Amino acid sequence: MNRESLLLTDLYQLTMLQAYHRQGMNDTAVFEFFVRKLPEGRNFLVAAGLEQVLDYLEEARFSPEELQWLRDCGRFRADFVDSLRDWRFGGDVDALPEGTVFFADEPLLRVVAPLREAQLVETRIINLLQFQTMVASKAARCVLAAQDRLLVDFGLRRAHGAEAGLLSARASYLAGFGGTATVLAGMRWGVPLFGTMAHSYIQAHGSESGAFESFARSQPASSTLLIDTYDTEQGARKLLDLIPKLASQGCHIGAVRLDSGDLGEHARRVRAILDAGGAAQVRILASGNLDEYRIRDLLQGGAPIDGFGVGTRMNTSADKPYLDCAYKLQEYAGLPRRKRSEGKLTWPGRKQVWRRLDADGRLCGDVLSVAGDPSAQADLLLPVMRQGRRLGRPPGLALLRAHAGEQLRRLPEPLRRLEPVPAYPVVVAEALQALARTADRLTGYSA
Amino acid sequence: MNRESLLLTDLYQLTMLQAYHRQGMNDTAVFEFFVRKLPEGRNFLVAAGLEQVLDYLEEARFSPEELQWLRDCGRFRADFVDSLRDWRFGGDVDALPEGTVFFADEPLLRVVAPLREAQLVETRIINLLQFQTMVASKAARCVLAAQDRLLVDFGLRRAHGAEAGLLSARASYLAGFGGTATVLAGMRWGVPLFGTMAHSYIQAHGSESGAFESFARSQPASSTLLIDTYDTEQGARKLLDLIPKLASQGCHIGAVRLDSGDLGEHARRVRAILDAGGAAQVRILASGNLDEYRIRDLLQGGAPIDGFGVGTRMNTSADKPYLDCAYKLQEYAGLPRRKRSEGKLTWPGRKQVWRRLDADGRLCGDVLSVAGDPSAQADLLLPVMRQGRRLGRPPGLALLRAHAGEQLRRLPEPLRRLEPVPAYPVVVAEALQALARTADRLTGYSA
Repeated sequence: MNRESLLLTDLYQLTMLQAYHRQGMNDTAVFEFFVRKLPEGRNFLVAAGLEQVLDYLEEARFSPEELQWLRDCGRFRADFVDSLRDWRFGGDVDALPEGTVFFADEPLLRVVAPLREAQLVETRIINLLQFQTMVASKAARCVLAAQDRLLVDFGLRRAHGAEAGLLSARASYLAGFGGTATVLAGMRWGVPLFGTMAHSYIQAHGSESGAFESFARSQPASSTLLIDTYDTEQGARKLLDLIPKLASQGCHIGAVRLDSGDLGEHARRVRAILDAGGAAQVRILASGNLDEYRIRDLLQGGAPIDGFGVGTRMNTSADKPYLDCAYKLQEYAGLPRRKRSEGKLTWPGRKQVWRRLDADGRLCGDVLSVAGDPSAQADLLLPVMRQGRRLGRPPGLALLRAHAGEQLRRLPEPLRRLEPVPAYPVVVAEALQALARTADRLTGYSA
Repeated sequence: MNRESLLLTDLYQLTMLQAYHRQGMNDTAVFEFFVRKLPEGRNFLVAAGLEQVLDYLEEARFSPEELQWLRDCGRFRADFVDSLRDWRFGGDVDALPEGTVFFADEPLLRVVAPLREAQLVETRIINLLQFQTMVASKAARCVLAAQDRLLVDFGLRRAHGAEAGLLSARASYLAGFGGTATVLAGMRWGVPLFGTMAHSYIQAHGSESGAFESFARSQPASSTLLIDTYDTEQGARKLLDLIPKLASQGCHIGAVRLDSGDLGEHARRVRAILDAGGAAQVRILASGNLDEYRIRDLLQGGAPIDGFGVGTRMNTSADKPYLDCAYKLQEYAGLPRRKRSEGKLTWPGRKQVWRRLDADGRLCGDVLSVAGDPSAQADLLLPVMRQGRRLGRPPGLALLRAHAGEQLRRLPEPLRRLEPVPAYPVVVAEALQALARTADRLTGYSA
């Protein structure tokens, strides 16, 4: 997929670069990525995607074929294309650690680099950060709703392409899912893998019982059988009849999966059938159009479900499939900048976030200020890259997942609800307000 | 992105393959991909993604590293992993040409192959077909709403990852967009490229006029200037003041872009300013949270907008970010199969679709039947791959786009509306109904 291709960008990045090249403009620029407004119905967001951004910044190059294409496409001057031959990102990055909870207007990432470097990477930085952050945030809501039940990402097939499938396995695991069905995410990041069987397996066999038996033999240690292909409760009874015979052959049934109909009602009936037949150890997994609301409703209704396969609605963030986010120029050549477009006013300068915790260690209010504010407490944005090189090795997904879990535990009770609650308080410090006035004066808008 | 990695799949595909391998099951299987139900608010869908599916089927292999990982992961037996070493897809594919309009239950694609080949490719086939079909269908609605105005895909940054951005540029162009901002889509498929400038360009300059001037000089033939960074109408007036000077230097302003506030109202004011100042030739482009509904409303309100940059809401299909679609086993070892799960009943066997046109050449009803039905008229699904090899070269995007345009012209008036209308008639032929009864008898469900 040309993940590191610098042509995976908007044409205007190259057009602007050519104009900057012509003018010799390349002073230090500061860009920040942030979310303007939380999507309706989200009380918090979870930062994710930084590792892929840093990979990109370290590895992004123009290939010889791409340079040739740029030369030949009729839009760019040869001297400009030549200037791209040794293009490298050599700037600094500060960011929230992945898994950190954050709110509107708080920067997730700050890039400080020569203008042409900081500008060219805009499109892909947004593309990577908005997607994983959106998925991790949606997945975190499922985690809160599931009350420690197992959650597994089943969403690759309806994710928006290959990368979306792969990265949503990563982002949902980071947010607290137990694992994924996507094999490549297991190979690449060690995300735990879970899998059951498809309806086609049952259908390819002459009988449902025959299919159950052959599958269990193929996975003697523990298998999960799909029992709803024809009739869920009949499927449960057929399985029950097989269990003694299979057990005598050393084949153990770990769980059944329900994938259609009223999942809560089927789970109750199947649980009753299994328990009455002495198969209380067989767990029940449910899947099919699940999201945080349906998980909560099933559990509130007392459905005896031990785990959930959650796909499409989680990894497309189906109710809110995008974030109102931006990567904006906040300072150029030492002077603060801000955009004043209607409804899109931004806070200028290099910013930092500090967080207050209450006596129980729960979040009770953030401060947004300028970096270096003398009233600063512990900075939430940390240095992660200097002069184009990572500071230290990537922390690894297990560590990030533990951090995200800690963050979710620190959420105050109202923010943990699935329903919208009043916004978490983020106060803009006086130092930042003063800087905004300065920026407006510089562009002639002293409001 | 390991586009052709066979590990970009669900774990259960490999688990099932191992069970089939153990049993020696590998008779001919027939799978079909179809949409169960059109998303609410969609009156038709546009098929897209076939070219990428055929690329995948031709190129998919297990790499030595992947085989080693499978051997080491503790889930698979060595003899099974060895059997994957020379895995190739060697089956047959029939499909609707990309750009074809279709409806619920009508197969887009039929795979006929040995069971283990047809099964393993399920996940990625769904992943590729559902995404591009969803985007092409959403983009087609924008095309109908835009009444021949220029539409440009601006959505890479908020697409779900790299592949989603790239493929949505392809799918929206196929559906009738004029082009994209995504450079790599231009390089790869020749999609026409469009670009303007970002707010950061304006902000990096000391003054807005200075930014306009330097950008126009860098693109003398024609440039598009973003005029809403501080105040839209002031921006238009500043530009007007510059036009004579720039023209005397051979620099031409092609268009202005509006990206915030009430786009219709700003377009009217800006048009009036430009016209009064003798700049009637400068066109107005609008962008920002656009979709088919906002485009229609702007044009119905008489907004003098010549073109639209449409991003996020189109290429995430934001109101309906997934399709209720499936890739289902319809026949195995010569016998028809169907799934009977609640709410998920499918039509068995190898199917075909025929379409009736009225005297004006407009669609007036489809027939869904079995392939080879003697009452057949022209088949909509055509052979595209035999024994794992494409039949002929890919048709090229220009041809597919022309086909899609022809299909949209053939839509009857009600289906062209953005509002939901009664479903287009798709009749199930007697031959298919008889086959369904046979399939039910075979699995003991003679309803």
